[in-house]
Amino acid sequence: MLRNQIIDRIQKNKTCLCVGLDTDASKLPLHLQGKPDAILEFNKQIIEATSDYCVAYKINTAFYECLGARGWEIMKETLRYIPKGIFTIADAKRGDIGNTSAMYAKAFFDQMAFDAVTVSPYMGSDSIKPFLEFKNKFTIVLALTSNAGSADFEQQKIGPDYLYERVLRTSKEWGTTENMMYVVGATKAEALLKIREIVPHHFLLIPGVGAQGGNLEEVIKYGAIKNEVGLLVNSSRQILYASDGEDFAEKAKEEAMKFQGII
Amino acid sequence: MLRNQIIDRIQKNKTCLCVGLDTDASKLPLHLQGKPDAILEFNKQIIEATSDYCVAYKINTAFYECLGARGWEIMKETLRYIPKGIFTIADAKRGDIGNTSAMYAKAFFDQMAFDAVTVSPYMGSDSIKPFLEFKNKFTIVLALTSNAGSADFEQQKIGPDYLYERVLRTSKEWGTTENMMYVVGATKAEALLKIREIVPHHFLLIPGVGAQGGNLEEVIKYGAIKNEVGLLVNSSRQILYASDGEDFAEKAKEEAMKFQGII
Repeated sequence: MLRNQIIDRIQKNKTCLCVGLDTDASKLPLHLQGKPDAILEFNKQIIEATSDYCVAYKINTAFYECLGARGWEIMKETLRYIPKGIFTIADAKRGDIGNTSAMYAKAFFDQMAFDAVTVSPYMGSDSIKPFLEFKNKFTIVLALTSNAGSADFEQQKIGPDYLYERVLRTSKEWGTTENMMYVVGATKAEALLKIREIVPHHFLLIPGVGAQGGNLEEVIKYGAIKNEVGLLVNSSRQILYASDGEDFAEKAKEEAMKFQGII
Repeated sequence: MLRNQIIDRIQKNKTCLCVGLDTDASKLPLHLQGKPDAILEFNKQIIEATSDYCVAYKINTAFYECLGARGWEIMKETLRYIPKGIFTIADAKRGDIGNTSAMYAKAFFDQMAFDAVTVSPYMGSDSIKPFLEFKNKFTIVLALTSNAGSADFEQQKIGPDYLYERVLRTSKEWGTTENMMYVVGATKAEALLKIREIVPHHFLLIPGVGAQGGNLEEVIKYGAIKNEVGLLVNSSRQILYASDGEDFAEKAKEEAMKFQGII
């Protein structure tokens, strides 16, 4: 998918919502629990209910890997339910030496047909560049994450910069705004001002709104790019588990609709 | 598995070799190529040939994920061929916010029965602690990797320390020598002196010997712990692809035997 296609959908559907399919078997609605392929059925209904009100879906691989090989099949099958024109992200946070990262890129871009994959920058340029070689795909680099542990290293100073700022400055030279994005946690909305000085034109994937405490209005205020928006705001638990009854999909839709018009 | 069991095997088998099962379908011996389950058959024969001459096997998940769900089955089936008493590592380089890292831990420690998993420290304490909660399992934290890209961030200074030294100092407080190890690339053998000042008693997993240019004697000289050795030296391509003929397992065994007696 191309950057312009993402912007077009944001403008047309009046939202920058990314629905996070972090589907946890233990949190499914009661009437689905214990059924074979409950997770797939749940994902299907969530997608049907929310696809008009979002720009992207993000599948966190951890929630599927813990199911083994069947989890990988469910990821792939879930992708098939996502309508064309919606951006798909494998939230995998991968990264390894060059020939190995190339295998990960193959896994998510070829073996499965994700539009984007999240990567960890710790190992540096040659751990990320193999992902960037795929055409019409996006590599989304972790910069500042939304968890408390981000204080341990991401928010330590390297010279005048925080590590996450150094990650932005260094890695933006490896790709373009057409094939790279950054993860920036919403719990640090004020940090977005400085981040936008460093990467004024890159799309930012913003986790941590809702369950993790981030404020959506502040994220838009400090992070949006004029006309293009340039943000994908992720919400997972708030949408997926809006109800544990048979109305879960309807309630998920209502939650997704709340994001419309805010931009 | 317990630290003492690893040390016992090192002393009994007179080696600290970890065989990396980074099995690449395109590099299999010609007579196996194109056969169904060629990778599994290859792994089985490599394990049978080398298991008396190693302490650990390390399965890099990237090489299996690029095969999709079947790749995950092959990983699990490969584990079954590894004899009891040999330490098994999922080289997965995972890490995410707490509840998500817990899912990854479940994937590798419960769904598959690995003894250890490698993790990336970028996101900090709460991305690693969920792995440490599993009993008789090891969490192996990336410190200094063997690739050129390690210069981009790992080898940048945070105050008086390199980032990778800061990772060692900070993270060693999260666990013990009984449940944590560190990845330290062999291409930087001289850095091991300083690393051993910071983590004198932790096991180190050393990739990058052989194909990546690391020197085994230097690694032992600067990195070994008296009596306990405290090193797992990984070799992948040098062993797996020692021959592309029908004698591949025999040649792999010869390569593995070269590591014996060096410690």
